[in-house]
This record gives sequence, structure tokens and C-alpha cells, in this order.
Amino acid sequence: MTAPPPGPTLPPRPTLLVLDAEPLPRLGRLTGRVRIEHADASTLAERLPYADVLLVWDFTSHAVRDAWPGEGPRPRWVHTASAGVDHLMSPELAASTTVVTNARGIFERPVAEYVAALVLAMAKDLPRTWDLQREREWRHRDAMRVAGTRACVVGSGPIGRTIARTLKALDVTTAIVGRVPRTGIHGPADLDRLMARADWVIAAAPLTEQTHGMFDARRFGVMQPSARFINVARGQLVVEEALADALSKRWIAGAALDVFQHEPLTPDSPLWRVPGLLVSPHMSGDTVGWRDALGAQFVELYERWAAGRPLLNVVDKKRGYVPGH
Amino acid sequence: MTAPPPGPTLPPRPTLLVLDAEPLPRLGRLTGRVRIEHADASTLAERLPYADVLLVWDFTSHAVRDAWPGEGPRPRWVHTASAGVDHLMSPELAASTTVVTNARGIFERPVAEYVAALVLAMAKDLPRTWDLQREREWRHRDAMRVAGTRACVVGSGPIGRTIARTLKALDVTTAIVGRVPRTGIHGPADLDRLMARADWVIAAAPLTEQTHGMFDARRFGVMQPSARFINVARGQLVVEEALADALSKRWIAGAALDVFQHEPLTPDSPLWRVPGLLVSPHMSGDTVGWRDALGAQFVELYERWAAGRPLLNVVDKKRGYVPGH
Repeated sequence: MTAPPPGPTLPPRPTLLVLDAEPLPRLGRLTGRVRIEHADASTLAERLPYADVLLVWDFTSHAVRDAWPGEGPRPRWVHTASAGVDHLMSPELAASTTVVTNARGIFERPVAEYVAALVLAMAKDLPRTWDLQREREWRHRDAMRVAGTRACVVGSGPIGRTIARTLKALDVTTAIVGRVPRTGIHGPADLDRLMARADWVIAAAPLTEQTHGMFDARRFGVMQPSARFINVARGQLVVEEALADALSKRWIAGAALDVFQHEPLTPDSPLWRVPGLLVSPHMSGDTVGWRDALGAQFVELYERWAAGRPLLNVVDKKRGYVPGH
Repeated sequence: MTAPPPGPTLPPRPTLLVLDAEPLPRLGRLTGRVRIEHADASTLAERLPYADVLLVWDFTSHAVRDAWPGEGPRPRWVHTASAGVDHLMSPELAASTTVVTNARGIFERPVAEYVAALVLAMAKDLPRTWDLQREREWRHRDAMRVAGTRACVVGSGPIGRTIARTLKALDVTTAIVGRVPRTGIHGPADLDRLMARADWVIAAAPLTEQTHGMFDARRFGVMQPSARFINVARGQLVVEEALADALSKRWIAGAALDVFQHEPLTPDSPLWRVPGLLVSPHMSGDTVGWRDALGAQFVELYERWAAGRPLLNVVDKKRGYVPGH
């Protein structure tokens, strides 16, 4: 019996730590090239020093923000399978040399379609039509024409810009408001004026210190009584009590929230029953195959990283989002 | 005392007979230039011989079809404030020299927006989301991406073409089927093949002998199990029992009807409760100001007619619609 001849020396495999709530598809393509370990909120802190790369798949968890300031080395790269990075950013991560990337490119179209669906459904009074169907009641109403109405999209990132493009395709006159004015984008100084004449105000901005609580009683008070408000960004952009109050007092005609300060919304939340408020369970970006797309995107980024090529979708950690074009 | 000097001789004022269910706005602009009389279904036959022009404002009434074959002269021009002319056409009217015009130009955009609203609402599962809201239940689902899906629009008139243009703006691959094939329009021979691969089949054709009952069990059987059917044209295009059956057996995934064989739908109609069927009360074309727009359109046509200029929107009475471009 002779020992088998020695094989070629393999390079050390990097350790990929996955913070996951459910299995992420497509990672099988990395088999043999990376050591994959899994963590949850309770084990993340102890595993973090041994990870080269952290993949944040559970985008509802704040575990990264909590665990990051711990002892020992930190991963050199963190990728989050989400558009927003608010759930994982901490001052320590922002100050570190670790690169953060996000899922730019996956959610833009689905979110924009979702916003168009809400705009059209509200214009055509579909929620009321289906209430009447339940009551077997034939009651004709005059609907609203969408073409020629005005939208104000707050958020000039890829999602906000895709929403604006989709609404323009329906002949909605659309303005975008961003952090800094640039070609085709209004600055914050124009926000109140644009909100005051909009039929649709759409929140699509990242959650940052500047956007936290920006939609408050004063801003709802600026809107037209016939206008509607839609939030597909982050719940913390909106002072929920102020929105409920504005709807109850008919300061505005309606609203749709896909995101909330606390998710999931519990059965005892008063938001389920605010008159004129449409509630959906944070699903605007999630179309069939979205998990697949997120997994494939990470594999592609991993291959760039492993080959020493520059990463894509790199987040400006100070600003809290990928800087736009 | 002397008699006032004689004024200029006025030409005789034509008599405009209005078949109305409710007052039509904007006719005030014709004051002094036309003698306006009103009729309902019970008085139309006796008034018809004395009318130069008939304006059919009550588009739900079959009174014209019933009264037209009577004794005496008939109006030289009939205008209907609707897109379809099925409710008023009779063999006698078709064979006469009377010109028939319709409301082309008013309903295209609203109907197209309504179809887009239904397509997006079904893709994003909004009816279920609002059912869950009523139950205070947070249940995330994966929605459907609309971009890249396929639509088959049946009806190549202005409404069908505007629907197609609107869906294309949402990046839906859209085919139009008309009575005769021409550039950009498929003929009836392609219908089954296009329906078989469509995600959305949209009925937007006029009601004629050729289209009556065209959506029957066989045609619903051709569709994909994931596909949905929408009717914004006339109820008689659809064999309603066959659609209810196709939905119950899950031959297709869903449907939305805005029009019905019998309108209004009575509370005892089984259609209110067919699983997967969305019911709305014939309102797809009716946006705020639509009555105003119809009145203004008639006044404009009247001014052409009174000046001896050619009318617009002239219906091909043999085919039952305004021939397309």
C-alpha cells in the first residue's frame, strides 16, 4: 500500500459568514471555494472575528449593528441583500476599512411597479370597488385620471429614479427631490413647494439622520387635501401618528404604507384601521425569484472580490447609501 | 306708439332631441341656435319624426333600436355619448342615410389607465393584501413582475390601441388583435395562439356579430393557468358562465369584469362571488369631468354640422364602429 500522491496545494479558503433567517439560494455555486458558516443574532458576535466576508441575508435583523463593536478582527467586506443599509450601519463600521455593498439593481423595477400599482389603484378607487363587491353593491363613481397629475418622489437613488421614470411613462408630471440638487433632481429647499402642489408624494429615500421622521405633521399639513402619500422606503421616515392624524382630519385624501416603524405590524396596531390608509407587509420589492436574484448577485460580487477586482454597489458609509449618478 | 322695427329674419332652428337619463352639461352653449327637446324610452318614438339631430346620452338604453323603425322622417344625424354603438344600431338605422357619430377621443386614456390599474393590482396581489389588512394579518407574499409579461389586447380601435401603448410603457410585451390584419395588428387567425401564451388577455373590442360570445369555454381553455382575463368592452363578448367555470376549475388565475351581460348587476348575481373574479360597475372610462368632456365634444360636432363641415367620429354602420387608422 502506498499513500496517494500529494495533490496540488490549495490556497486557504476564505470564510463566508452568512447571517440568515432562511436559506439563501445560489450559494452552492461557491462550494469548494469558500468555507460557508451560518450565524444568527445570538452567535454573530462570537463568529465575526473568524469571518473574511459577512453576508447579511436577514435584512430585518439589527444583529450586525449590535455585534460589530466587539473584540478581534472584523470581516473585510460586508454585503447586505437589501437596498437600505440602515439596519447594519454603526459608527464603528462606518469608521472601519471594511467595504459595504448592497443589492442595488434588484429592487428598482419591482418597487416602481408597486408604486404605480398603488397610484393607479387609488386613482381608480379600487379598494372601495372591492369593498362594494363584497357587499354585492353596484355603485358607479367617477374615477381620477392619472395622466396630467403631479408626483413628488422623495429620494434620488436608483429606486426613486426608477419610480419617477415609471410614473412619467403614465404621463404623470414627476419631480425628484434628493439630498443635493443636481441636473433633474431638486434639493431639500424645494421639498415643501413641490409637496404643496403634488397629487402624489412618494417616499423612496434611504433612512439616514436627515430623513428620519421627515414626514411629520407640518409636512402633511403642506399637502393638498386631494393628495395621497405613499411610503415604500423605511417606516422611520414617517411620523406614523402624524400621518394617522392627517388622514383622520382629512388633511390629505389617502395614504399607502408598505413599511413601518415596527415590522411586522402586530394585530393590535391602530394602523390597520386608519381611514384612508392602505397597509401592505413590506413586499413592494419582492417579486417571484427575488431571493434567486439576490443570491446570484452576491455570487457575482464574490467572484469579483476573490479575483481582486473592484466591487460594485459600494456604499458610502458616511452617507448611508450608494452615491448616485 | 309705433311697432318696433322688424329684426333680421332668423333661420329656422334645428330641433335637437336628447335621450337622457340625467342632465348633460355644456348644451347651454347651443342656446338660441337649436331647439332642445328631451325624450325618454317611453316618448322617443313619438318625438323622433320631429328631430333633426338625436343625441343619445343615456347609453344604457335600447330605446333607439326599438323606436327607429317607426313611421315618419328620421333624424339626419345621431350622436352617441359613448364609444360603443351596439345599444342603438338596428338594421333600419344601418340601411338609412342617417350619419352616426360616437365619443371617440374621450374614453381611451381613462380605460387604458383602468386596465393598467387592474393588471398591476393583480400582479401585486393587492386585493388579497387589503383582505389581509381587514383581518389585521401581516402575511408577506412574493408578487409578480409586470415588465416582461405578455398581453393580448383584443380590439384594434382607439381604446385597444391606447391600452396596448400604456401596457408597453410598463414594458409589457403587447400584441393587438383586430378584425383584419394590418401593420402592427394581428388578424383573428392569430387569436388562439396569442391567447395561449399571454399573461393578460384584455377584451376591448366593439360588440358586433363577430365578437358576441367570443370569449367562451374553448377560448378560456386555451389560456395559461397563470393568465388573467380583463373585460372593459361589453359584457356580451363574454360567456359569463364559462368564465366563472374556468375560474372555479383554475383554468386561469384570475379575471376582472367591468362590464356585464346585464347591467347593473343585481345583488343576487352569482358573479359577485366567483373566486378570483374582480367586479367593478362599468366605470373604466369615467373619470372626473367625463360628462363635461362629452358635452363639449357634442357641441363641437354640432358646430361642424351646423356650418355644413364634415362630421368627425363617423361610425361605419355596417361594421359597428369608427374605422381605424
